[in-house]
Amino acid sequence: MATPVKVYGPPMSTAVSRVLACLLEKDVQFQLIPINMAKGEHKKPEFLKIQPFGQVPAFQDESISLFESRSICRYICEKHADKGNKGLYGGTNPLAKASIDQWIEAEGQSFNPPSSVLVFQLAFAPRMKLNQDPKAIKLNEDKLAKVLEVYERRLGESRFLAGDEFSLADLSHLPNAQYLVTVADRAEIFASKKNVGRWWDEISTRDSWKKVLEMQNTASN
Amino acid sequence: MATPVKVYGPPMSTAVSRVLACLLEKDVQFQLIPINMAKGEHKKPEFLKIQPFGQVPAFQDESISLFESRSICRYICEKHADKGNKGLYGGTNPLAKASIDQWIEAEGQSFNPPSSVLVFQLAFAPRMKLNQDPKAIKLNEDKLAKVLEVYERRLGESRFLAGDEFSLADLSHLPNAQYLVTVADRAEIFASKKNVGRWWDEISTRDSWKKVLEMQNTASN
Repeated sequence: MATPVKVYGPPMSTAVSRVLACLLEKDVQFQLIPINMAKGEHKKPEFLKIQPFGQVPAFQDESISLFESRSICRYICEKHADKGNKGLYGGTNPLAKASIDQWIEAEGQSFNPPSSVLVFQLAFAPRMKLNQDPKAIKLNEDKLAKVLEVYERRLGESRFLAGDEFSLADLSHLPNAQYLVTVADRAEIFASKKNVGRWWDEISTRDSWKKVLEMQNTASN
Repeated sequence: MATPVKVYGPPMSTAVSRVLACLLEKDVQFQLIPINMAKGEHKKPEFLKIQPFGQVPAFQDESISLFESRSICRYICEKHADKGNKGLYGGTNPLAKASIDQWIEAEGQSFNPPSSVLVFQLAFAPRMKLNQDPKAIKLNEDKLAKVLEVYERRLGESRFLAGDEFSLADLSHLPNAQYLVTVADRAEIFASKKNVGRWWDEISTRDSWKKVLEMQNTASN
C-alpha cells in the first residue's frame, strides 16, 4: 500500500477543504495533520519550509512538497490518473482538460476574490467579534452577482462548468460557496438563479463533499 | 503549415501580453486580433461567445476557444510540447510541472492581486485622469513587499521560481512587473532585493519578452 499523502492544515480552511474534496474524489489515502493557526503554527520556521507564504494547506507525498490548493489538486489528478473519479481533470482528453483548467482559473480569478471577502465579512468577522465593513460587503456582492450571471448562462448550456461531467472546476467552488450558503446565510445568492441553483444542489450533495463537511464538524466539536 | 492560433485583445493588456510571451517562447505562430476596448468591443455578443466575462484575451485554435491567460498558456505548452522552449511547463517531468504550476498559482493568487492594483493606481489612473487612492496604494505596496520577501528567499535557493530553468511561472510575472518598473516608475520594488533584482534582470531581457514590448510600442504609436 502506498504511504498516505500528508495534508497540513485545518479542514475548516477553504483551501484545505478544496484539497480534501479532491483526495476523496480520487480515492487517494491521506493523513490530515492539524495546524493550529490561532497559535501561529503556520508561521513557524519548520512549516515555512514547506509553505513559504505561511498559509494552509501544505502538501507532501513521497517525492514532493507543494502549496497552493488548486496546484495540489491538479497534481493529485495527474499522479493518480487511474484512481477514483478518472475524469475529474479531463482524463486523457487534452481539450477537456483545457476547458476544466480555464474554469478553475475563473474560480480563482473571478469567483474567489469577491466570495472570499464575503465569507470573511459575513461568516467569520462576527465570530471573531470584528466589525463588518458594509461598503466591502456591498461592493463584493455586486461583483459576485456579475460573475454568477456568467455562470447562469454557462450552466444553461452544460450541466457542469467545464462540460457534462463534474470536474475539478466545479469542486474548486465548493468551499467558499458552502460558507456563503450556510454560515453567511446567503443561500439565495445561488438559489435565486435557476441553473446556478441546480448546479449548487448537485455539486454540494456529492459524497466526497459531504465527507469533508463531516470532517469540518468533527474538527470543530 | 498549421493555421496560426488567434489571440484577441490589445498587447498592452497584461493578460494578453502573458499569452503573447508564451507563444513566442514556444515558437507557435499566432495572429493578434485587435479588440478596441475603448469602444466596448469586448462586451459585444460575438465576443462574449468566446470570452463570457467580457475580458481579454480570448484564444482560438482549430479545435478550441479558451479564456483566462494562465490556462491558455498551460494549453499552449501541453499542445506544443515539442516546439520552442520545451521545458517551459516542465516537459515530461511531472514533478517539475507541479513545481511550475504552484508558482503560477502563487503569481495568480499572491503576486497579481496587489501588483495589479498598483499598476492601475500608479500607471493607469494618472493617464486616465482618475484620482489615485493613497490608502489602496499603501495597502498594496505593503502586501506586495511581503510577497517579495518570500520570493527573495526562494530566489536565493534557485535561479528561477520553480527551479533552475526559466518557466511559465517566471513568465507569468512579466506583465505586471514590467508596468511597475517602467510606467509606475517603481523599479526599486525589485532592484532593492538582491535575488529578486537579479531574477527580474534575467527574465525581463529574454528575447520573447523584448518582442512583446516591441509589439506594445508599435500598437501604442
